[in-house]
Amino acid sequence: MTELTHWQLHPTLAQDCHFIGRVSCAELLLHRNASLHWFILVPHTDVVDMLDLPADERNALLGQASKVGHYLKQTLHYPRVNVGALGLVVPQLHLHVIGRREDDPCWPAPVWGNLDVDAAYSARDVERFRSELMR
Amino acid sequence: MTELTHWQLHPTLAQDCHFIGRVSCAELLLHRNASLHWFILVPHTDVVDMLDLPADERNALLGQASKVGHYLKQTLHYPRVNVGALGLVVPQLHLHVIGRREDDPCWPAPVWGNLDVDAAYSARDVERFRSELMR
Repeated sequence: MTELTHWQLHPTLAQDCHFIGRVSCAELLLHRNASLHWFILVPHTDVVDMLDLPADERNALLGQASKVGHYLKQTLHYPRVNVGALGLVVPQLHLHVIGRREDDPCWPAPVWGNLDVDAAYSARDVERFRSELMR
Repeated sequence: MTELTHWQLHPTLAQDCHFIGRVSCAELLLHRNASLHWFILVPHTDVVDMLDLPADERNALLGQASKVGHYLKQTLHYPRVNVGALGLVVPQLHLHVIGRREDDPCWPAPVWGNLDVDAAYSARDVERFRSELMR
């Protein structure tokens, strides 16, 4: 992926999320709401809609998302993973990768607009995700 | 993609959508609610979560989704396209590809659970989508 020297993470994403790390093509974030595990990949691009990415960049992004999905299932024991790129509120391309289970606060509805409970991660939690996901 | 001789479209998807055609790896459907253009790709697989697909099948599915996204933008003049695989209500893997614009009935919210208006396509509309998308 072309390095964009002017690329900056959107301030709303920076505010709403913990920074986990930089993967090959994107920033990996974790939504601060700990009532379910909600990761967000933000590729280093000016393209706004995921389906407008060149195929190689799209495939690389989905490859990273699959690693996160695998982590959600294998390590955090979620039976299901939602994935979506919406971006109508925050217009910087970002891909949601969200662990879902039947006892989560909004099952079976999507999380967006339906997550009425809040919870916070400890600094130790975030460090654990960093060490497990970025090794 | 392996041909699954037992594969059948989930009855809820069959009921909620018009059948547009069979693309290389999936069935292409159009949601019956015509208040915005909402396509759904249903790959011929028993895998339930998109991120669990083998990379080649995932990339092929996203390639098809990109063609639909291109059609939504270039032919139907949508400025934005939402894409998502949720599948908690209908547990057969399906990928939503949805045209979005600022004057649509639920902007900027996601369509799922927020599309309170209904409208129907004419048979001629559906035939037009078929001829334009499947040529």
